[in-house]
Amino acid sequence: MKRSSQPIGIFDSGIGGLTVTREIAKRLPQESIVYLGDTLRCPYGPRPLQEIRTFARQIASWLYEQDVKLIVIACNSATAAGLEVVQQESPVPVIGVIEPGARAAVQATISRRVGVIGTVATIESDVYNRAIRSLDAGITTFSTATPRFVEMVEQGLRLDRNPIEDIQAQASRVYIRPAFQEIARDYLNPLKRCNIDTLVLGCTHYPLLAPLISQVVGSDVRIISSAEETARDVAEMLERRGQLASEGHEPVYRFATTSRDLDDYARLGSVILGRPVIDPAYVSLEELEETLVDFEQKRMAS
Amino acid sequence: MKRSSQPIGIFDSGIGGLTVTREIAKRLPQESIVYLGDTLRCPYGPRPLQEIRTFARQIASWLYEQDVKLIVIACNSATAAGLEVVQQESPVPVIGVIEPGARAAVQATISRRVGVIGTVATIESDVYNRAIRSLDAGITTFSTATPRFVEMVEQGLRLDRNPIEDIQAQASRVYIRPAFQEIARDYLNPLKRCNIDTLVLGCTHYPLLAPLISQVVGSDVRIISSAEETARDVAEMLERRGQLASEGHEPVYRFATTSRDLDDYARLGSVILGRPVIDPAYVSLEELEETLVDFEQKRMAS
Repeated sequence: MKRSSQPIGIFDSGIGGLTVTREIAKRLPQESIVYLGDTLRCPYGPRPLQEIRTFARQIASWLYEQDVKLIVIACNSATAAGLEVVQQESPVPVIGVIEPGARAAVQATISRRVGVIGTVATIESDVYNRAIRSLDAGITTFSTATPRFVEMVEQGLRLDRNPIEDIQAQASRVYIRPAFQEIARDYLNPLKRCNIDTLVLGCTHYPLLAPLISQVVGSDVRIISSAEETARDVAEMLERRGQLASEGHEPVYRFATTSRDLDDYARLGSVILGRPVIDPAYVSLEELEETLVDFEQKRMAS
Repeated sequence: MKRSSQPIGIFDSGIGGLTVTREIAKRLPQESIVYLGDTLRCPYGPRPLQEIRTFARQIASWLYEQDVKLIVIACNSATAAGLEVVQQESPVPVIGVIEPGARAAVQATISRRVGVIGTVATIESDVYNRAIRSLDAGITTFSTATPRFVEMVEQGLRLDRNPIEDIQAQASRVYIRPAFQEIARDYLNPLKRCNIDTLVLGCTHYPLLAPLISQVVGSDVRIISSAEETARDVAEMLERRGQLASEGHEPVYRFATTSRDLDDYARLGSVILGRPVIDPAYVSLEELEETLVDFEQKRMAS
């Protein structure tokens, strides 16, 4: 039985997973968190599933070493590619972002026509369609890859000239260049014409574009962000297992990244997280690779 | 958009689904309910899946006619056999009892060894194994059919000599004959030896045997009843869709059965439901068959 004071481990290809982290911290303020953003290898979206799967296994191994009680794969591409294999190997439970988002969409849709947007890896893997239809076989899904949305978020965050001290007030706003609005219309208009009443944001970066997306698809389309849903799942699981941190537990947040630009990571991360990302640690790819090798050897031996 | 004052439709092969109804009524006291128990054709468990599927489609068609806003298939065998096809045809959302129970087991297990018991139809369909492993591929499931448990519940209810007026106090107790205890040990000891830490009661009759089951498998094994979990799902779905009955709405409960022995249905049903089953209506098999034919014709025409 894992101790309740252990941290929750969360990872993403970069900073997008901090939208999920933000919701988890909001819902479970006593929980300590270790977050790793694999910023050096970001984005995962255009990579082959097999490669993403290896990255997910490496980072999960690194999180086991941090003594986490639960792992959240806060990245749709990594969930699509790696959730199953990481669950099979992991000594602790592993939650992805796809099933919670799919369930929320199933519960929300009235017309039973659901749109899904995500990276190329996520959309091509067809996981959302399968997850939604396994919950309600009567729902029709319409999905499209919107790969440039990640770049739009990252550029928007860098263009935002508000000082870092204002992050609490900013609440995850990003600046949208006019050219981006046109790209968003090109991506989303075909979905809109399918008469969807619910749209799943199948990438953890996308909640930062929710106002723009909503403007294009119309305010009558319900926007589902996996972030809140995943946080609800984490809370439910820890509660049911009796592993919630005790009342008044002083949480510790630790952040790590594979990029050497720690300042950039801290600055952009803080905007998304809505609180300061303090002193992020650098973790080299060599360290991640070695941790997986060590973990595999230990597994073979046991 | 469905009106919030419409009833929730619930059905089962008999009275077992009243364990689910009880939890739904407890969690959502403002909601009206229409319940049909297909007592004449009970049990579904030993029947071919194809036959159960037709029964489920017939009853669902009958419930559409009752103007329900949501259908709960409160029967594991009917969920295993018919959930998918009913969802594909239904004008309203349809919730089964398997996915909620599977999710609860995934959240609860620490050793990640989960036992499942159910009818022959449910266990042979392998749905619990698939539902559990699609949520956590690292869990090992051990399942066994325990068909005589349904008979034990029904006999136990009839042997219970407490007057019907005491049902509120009885809280779903059933009398267990000594011979039944031996049967329970024969069924459950092999599962116990698999070192499971969580056991899913994959039949809506079984919560009534929970004390006996727990006694055999040991109090350290977590017992998961789909009833509570399904009620939680129903509440979540109606809330998210803005279809909860308004505060202070006076709920109406209507009960129906395919059996002509209305008194027996009312008496046993009241014990399970924990409140009186008043004036159940008789619904003939011919009526169910015709309703499906009508529904199919309307679907073809539209």
